Amino acid sequence: MAAGCLFCEIAAGTLAAHVVLETADVMAFLDHRPVFPGHCLLVPRTHVETLPDLPAALVVPVFSEAQRLARAVPLALGAHGTFVAMNNKVSQSVPHLHVHVVPRKTKDGLRGFFWPRVKYESEAAMADTAARIRAALATS
Amino acid sequence: MAAGCLFCEIAAGTLAAHVVLETADVMAFLDHRPVFPGHCLLVPRTHVETLPDLPAALVVPVFSEAQRLARAVPLALGAHGTFVAMNNKVSQSVPHLHVHVVPRKTKDGLRGFFWPRVKYESEAAMADTAARIRAALATS
Repeated sequence: MAAGCLFCEIAAGTLAAHVVLETADVMAFLDHRPVFPGHCLLVPRTHVETLPDLPAALVVPVFSEAQRLARAVPLALGAHGTFVAMNNKVSQSVPHLHVHVVPRKTKDGLRGFFWPRVKYESEAAMADTAARIRAALATS
Repeated sequence: MAAGCLFCEIAAGTLAAHVVLETADVMAFLDHRPVFPGHCLLVPRTHVETLPDLPAALVVPVFSEAQRLARAVPLALGAHGTFVAMNNKVSQSVPHLHVHVVPRKTKDGLRGFFWPRVKYESEAAMADTAARIRAALATS
């Protein structure tokens, strides 16, 4: 448990939340400022900051429960799908890994991945980017 | 392999892509219309449509490689973090599960979860929403 971490406090039961799911390893509760009502946050009880920090032993506990939530949330709320997302470091409001599970309806106004898309300057620039990622993977 | 599925074709090697990662179970390649250069899509080779559809045996193959990508992409590109996301059904451009791994820099203009947030009408409405999700989880 990390001192001053809101999500550690929720996991420990010392900070109230609308909990929807609890297992030995994870907890899920309603985001209090939802994108849409029913927007849940799933967290490992253990304090880890980002997805890469998640211990191997917690990959199944976290993502199998994320699967269950992504199935249950639309069923519960008459939604048509979900958006499941994690911010790592940048735009991460609480530095304790949390998987957002947001109910989505068609024509709900979000348009999902509506961020401005860009183009690579050239095929060579794209190939270079891929090569750099492959190199970083090879050393990690 | 699903007929006419672009990501099945990439996984089979019959459609070209800038591949960054390949294992027996998954493949990752550059999105050709990136949010930012280095935006990767990680897919299971098996055709599954959404996160809830992913077989239990593929949870670790998919998400342990998503962790590796979320570590490598910022390293490769001098970024500060990542956005890792899946659209299930709504806003899902290709109906073959794909995990977006998008490099993020501070002040990159995205502001992450910048979607308009709402408030629950009341504490009772929030409690009711949580109860409905718990009920759906209990039956799934």
